[in-house]
Amino acid sequence: MKALRKMRPERGAQLESIAVPVIGPTDVLVRVRAASICGTDLHIYGWDRWSASRIHPPMTFGHEFCGIVEKIGEEVTSVRPGDFVSAEMHVNCGYCRPCRMGQPHVCQNVKIIGIDADGCFAEFVRIPARNIWKIDPKIPEHYAAILDPLGNAVHTVTAGEIAGQNVVVTGAGPIGLMAINVARACGCALLFATEVNAHRRELAIEMGADEALDPAQPGIVEHVRSLTEGGVDVLLEMSGNPEAIQQGFQMLRQGGRASLLGIPKDLVTLDLVNDVIFKGATVQGIYGRRMFETWVHMTELLKHNRLNLEPLFHERLPLEKFETAFSLLESGQAGKVLFYPNGSPK
Amino acid sequence: MKALRKMRPERGAQLESIAVPVIGPTDVLVRVRAASICGTDLHIYGWDRWSASRIHPPMTFGHEFCGIVEKIGEEVTSVRPGDFVSAEMHVNCGYCRPCRMGQPHVCQNVKIIGIDADGCFAEFVRIPARNIWKIDPKIPEHYAAILDPLGNAVHTVTAGEIAGQNVVVTGAGPIGLMAINVARACGCALLFATEVNAHRRELAIEMGADEALDPAQPGIVEHVRSLTEGGVDVLLEMSGNPEAIQQGFQMLRQGGRASLLGIPKDLVTLDLVNDVIFKGATVQGIYGRRMFETWVHMTELLKHNRLNLEPLFHERLPLEKFETAFSLLESGQAGKVLFYPNGSPK
Amino acid sequence: MKALRKMRPERGAQLESIAVPVIGPTDVLVRVRAASICGTDLHIYGWDRWSASRIHPPMTFGHEFCGIVEKIGEEVTSVRPGDFVSAEMHVNCGYCRPCRMGQPHVCQNVKIIGIDADGCFAEFVRIPARNIWKIDPKIPEHYAAILDPLGNAVHTVTAGEIAGQNVVVTGAGPIGLMAINVARACGCALLFATEVNAHRRELAIEMGADEALDPAQPGIVEHVRSLTEGGVDVLLEMSGNPEAIQQGFQMLRQGGRASLLGIPKDLVTLDLVNDVIFKGATVQGIYGRRMFETWVHMTELLKHNRLNLEPLFHERLPLEKFETAFSLLESGQAGKVLFYPNGSPK
Amino acid sequence: MKALRKMRPERGAQLESIAVPVIGPTDVLVRVRAASICGTDLHIYGWDRWSASRIHPPMTFGHEFCGIVEKIGEEVTSVRPGDFVSAEMHVNCGYCRPCRMGQPHVCQNVKIIGIDADGCFAEFVRIPARNIWKIDPKIPEHYAAILDPLGNAVHTVTAGEIAGQNVVVTGAGPIGLMAINVARACGCALLFATEVNAHRRELAIEMGADEALDPAQPGIVEHVRSLTEGGVDVLLEMSGNPEAIQQGFQMLRQGGRASLLGIPKDLVTLDLVNDVIFKGATVQGIYGRRMFETWVHMTELLKHNRLNLEPLFHERLPLEKFETAFSLLESGQAGKVLFYPNGSPK
Repeated sequence: MKALRKMRPERGAQLESIAVPVIGPTDVLVRVRAASICGTDLHIYGWDRWSASRIHPPMTFGHEFCGIVEKIGEEVTSVRPGDFVSAEMHVNCGYCRPCRMGQPHVCQNVKIIGIDADGCFAEFVRIPARNIWKIDPKIPEHYAAILDPLGNAVHTVTAGEIAGQNVVVTGAGPIGLMAINVARACGCALLFATEVNAHRRELAIEMGADEALDPAQPGIVEHVRSLTEGGVDVLLEMSGNPEAIQQGFQMLRQGGRASLLGIPKDLVTLDLVNDVIFKGATVQGIYGRRMFETWVHMTELLKHNRLNLEPLFHERLPLEKFETAFSLLESGQAGKVLFYPNGSPK
Repeated sequence: MKALRKMRPERGAQLESIAVPVIGPTDVLVRVRAASICGTDLHIYGWDRWSASRIHPPMTFGHEFCGIVEKIGEEVTSVRPGDFVSAEMHVNCGYCRPCRMGQPHVCQNVKIIGIDADGCFAEFVRIPARNIWKIDPKIPEHYAAILDPLGNAVHTVTAGEIAGQNVVVTGAGPIGLMAINVARACGCALLFATEVNAHRRELAIEMGADEALDPAQPGIVEHVRSLTEGGVDVLLEMSGNPEAIQQGFQMLRQGGRASLLGIPKDLVTLDLVNDVIFKGATVQGIYGRRMFETWVHMTELLKHNRLNLEPLFHERLPLEKFETAFSLLESGQAGKVLFYPNGSPK
Repeated sequence: MKALRKMRPERGAQLESIAVPVIGPTDVLVRVRAASICGTDLHIYGWDRWSASRIHPPMTFGHEFCGIVEKIGEEVTSVRPGDFVSAEMHVNCGYCRPCRMGQPHVCQNVKIIGIDADGCFAEFVRIPARNIWKIDPKIPEHYAAILDPLGNAVHTVTAGEIAGQNVVVTGAGPIGLMAINVARACGCALLFATEVNAHRRELAIEMGADEALDPAQPGIVEHVRSLTEGGVDVLLEMSGNPEAIQQGFQMLRQGGRASLLGIPKDLVTLDLVNDVIFKGATVQGIYGRRMFETWVHMTELLKHNRLNLEPLFHERLPLEKFETAFSLLESGQAGKVLFYPNGSPK
Repeated sequence: MKALRKMRPERGAQLESIAVPVIGPTDVLVRVRAASICGTDLHIYGWDRWSASRIHPPMTFGHEFCGIVEKIGEEVTSVRPGDFVSAEMHVNCGYCRPCRMGQPHVCQNVKIIGIDADGCFAEFVRIPARNIWKIDPKIPEHYAAILDPLGNAVHTVTAGEIAGQNVVVTGAGPIGLMAINVARACGCALLFATEVNAHRRELAIEMGADEALDPAQPGIVEHVRSLTEGGVDVLLEMSGNPEAIQQGFQMLRQGGRASLLGIPKDLVTLDLVNDVIFKGATVQGIYGRRMFETWVHMTELLKHNRLNLEPLFHERLPLEKFETAFSLLESGQAGKVLFYPNGSPK
């Protein structure tokens, strides 16, 4: 089968022909319909420091996808060939303390398919049965391909109360934009976005923000605070940018919630006393998706047409055009780019 | 001033001319703009067993209203004459264990204005300053008059997770209908209503229910369970009817939430083993409104136009037409009926 | 191997010689050290209506035990032969909505080992690897044999806030007594027990209750309410007796928590209005043990010597003496009776 | 009356003779029995940068105390002269968004008695009635004098699950030591303290820690992680020291809780990615005491003899010996030092 693989510890990738994965008794083989490129895939492609420390070539990458069940292991009863599925790519151990405490999404021994094992930029991908997520047929194929990042957004938004809450989303990249749309669908009150890129600020409005602010503009902290009786109830941090994080905390009211998903490249300096301790704030590190509460929430929102994610999508390409895909994304101009390893989009 | 008063321990009421209330140093005097009639007022008017045990005539009843601040006590700094306000009519003691535990809405020593003290079916009403709720000018007068029952609905819906949850609302009277609209605004998934009255079933659909079911129709429990993978996530009980309560519990999934607001007239027999214990259900008694979390949530939903309550409203009458008002409501044909003791609606 | 089995749909059981269970790739075979008799086993032995509807003879019963891993399936990496273990006997499906919502303990498709499959009143028992619980070597064998009911108690006590809370435990059977000890270990305030049996009332005091009350004594509701500023914060219902449940609710303060574990034989009539709705109470159905939060909590409490369960234990017998064991328990005189299918207690 | 007052914007204080406070209709005048010196009082005495920005001399400081009600305003019904009381010294506005959201302890307009108004280092202090806390007569006078800092400790410990949790307390000053004792009383599992001062490490063990570690000792993070299956469940940060905070986070397991009470003097640099985001940690800023949940919890723990705070107490002095008191505390050798403005300790 065709697979897009990192062959050597250096920038780039290669389209290879390799054997279809062999599945064990509790595994499922999925024929990939659509796979989406994550920021992490860009890091792997570009071969940054994190990639060099984590990725062991040769390997197939990619971890956002949907597809059709091709084959199941002999102990698998939860799906059948022909089922339309996606998957939670974080494979948890089931036995460490977080797993035993109902927090498998922060398993101490997690393996990620597409990072620690061969991923979905290929015609077929092997997934343990309990990580498979059956997709409601009402959900369109291109939405089904991005459940991984949408799940990040849903996890972040629903990590605390959201209905009737004033919210700021710092950073309007794809997940930030999704979070805006999800927060709106869940009945939030005033919804601000902060974003340096003017085009993304427009998208933020399109996705449901009441105001999209340029973080460099003077006075925006005061502006937000004055419209919200002293600060927003909820900060959804999606940028990973230290200054945006600091500004977000300044916009947060006494007793508010800050849910942090964006990944800073370096250490971050915080005014812990004023922004967290005296503020009585609750700060949540958000990682992955709740297994599987987030998948249920996300499915219901999609099934019942509560979300409009169309503005996020950009090119849909065959796997062969991977260089085009990565160039587009590296230019910062594209939204979500999808691969179709087994033929054209439906 | 004019006031609609219960003068004797018997059916009926009288429009009386009495002195404007004298306020103390921490009180506020409000000129009533619009007052709404609650089911409780019907009981007081009709003089049922509960009324006979609780109400001490002569007294002015009515506890749902909005108005304009006329005058404030010397220690009051939170509002000024001219402010547009409503009020939480449950006056809590502040010192009992529930009050000290952050649950003032279930104060052990609560006094209710309009039940234990003179209420709002009058030109003026006296309210302690800390019970006054300032109303955002974006909220229309007739909506502002029904914040008390709307708060019941918002309290019930938001007493647990609602976004992405399958829901059944049992009973589509005014508060049930509001709950449907609120649940929809907060991103619920599939939303069922059960209601005996065909007209109210139509209203339930209009307010946002996906299906409005006749509880007498055979097979509706199985129908709901089959569409929801084994039962709804959330039961919002608004009927007070023992059979509806039982049916609601049968529709609830293992591990679901049942929030009970409707008031049964008698004892209720439950299949505690199957419907609560083995089910691992969480059952919440809902009373009044969280003070004042519910008021904040409700205000934000209204300010941001998340609710459409227009279908609930019926006649708007001067206080003099109280007999018409109570007849309409006793006939079961009317939605919310409003009094305007100080002139016509805006 | 020896196994105590229900051979026919009638009262009684037989000690049989049967084949050692064959294990699959994800199973573990455990050599049983000590097995404890549950009230459910008494029902199976006596063959009541529930047993007749659920149990399919011939089968080995028993579901409370500890033992030593004898053999593991080829895919099992979490335990090794020689490990000291117990097990969660509720085998959840992993795919139904409660399982996917982080509530596997109320799985819609649960199978219980010892009820729906061969249990632990035998020399060996087969357990799926993910249901195995490794036991800290600091925990004594006879405690390790009763983790199933202790888990019920821990689950009930920790289902809400307990430190600093006034508590009543209604029913001082084995699980009620354990709950008393657990609540005490977790920092509860005033701790009442109600129990009809005088000997058990003494045990309740021994296990840590401040007062053990006879439910038939007049005035005990007022007594409890007067000592607790209007009622206890927490009701832990362990009796399943309708009158005890009603009395427990009367003892509960406004805004309190009622956690129900005891299993009523029939429908229960409640004063829903006064005891739940107007009270703003939270009522929790408690079933099984959280998987596996409860196991972690319980292990830590035992490891750190926070519990003293010695008063609960009664006879320790070989499997051959099963008739003695069941007679003792049916007489109501015994605490926990343990079987040792593979030799004497350590 | 005598009062210890800051007369000028400089180091030191003076014992002055001033008028007894005049009370308003909703106030209570309390005759101070015992007053305790807080770290904040040391800052005010020494006149650091924070004091210079916040304190307006001349004023009486002190905010930890107990006493006897001397006189009540005409609207006060909750206490009577002769009652033994303490007080929550944070006076919240009741109307800002945090106050309305059930978070009065982080009121945006808080005034602190002893900082923003005349405090308790005096024979008499004036307190609004709703801030008065009646003290159970079972609680000894010297314990009643330190409810303010004990409340900080109880607030921090009970801000999340504690029973069965592995805990590290970073910093064993008075509040850290109290937190150790409270966590132990609430059923925590393994309990570590980190503290630079050897004497305080001894006290930490005396108060209930299993191990008291020197943070400078190499390998202690690994030591804690290895004894706790990958890190403690709960970090209670009591030092305000940036390195201790960082070390505490390294000791925290995936999915753990970090409750921060200690007040860093400067900005703090965190490894947000690894210590919060990827870890899925919940970080709570803890400020003051929940009003009044914390007071209820604390009272119950004290009433039922769950705490032993004796090792914390040091000198008990008349107000005249204030210079001795502050010297003792500035030397770092003393635990809690108490003033008795109205005569000797009972």
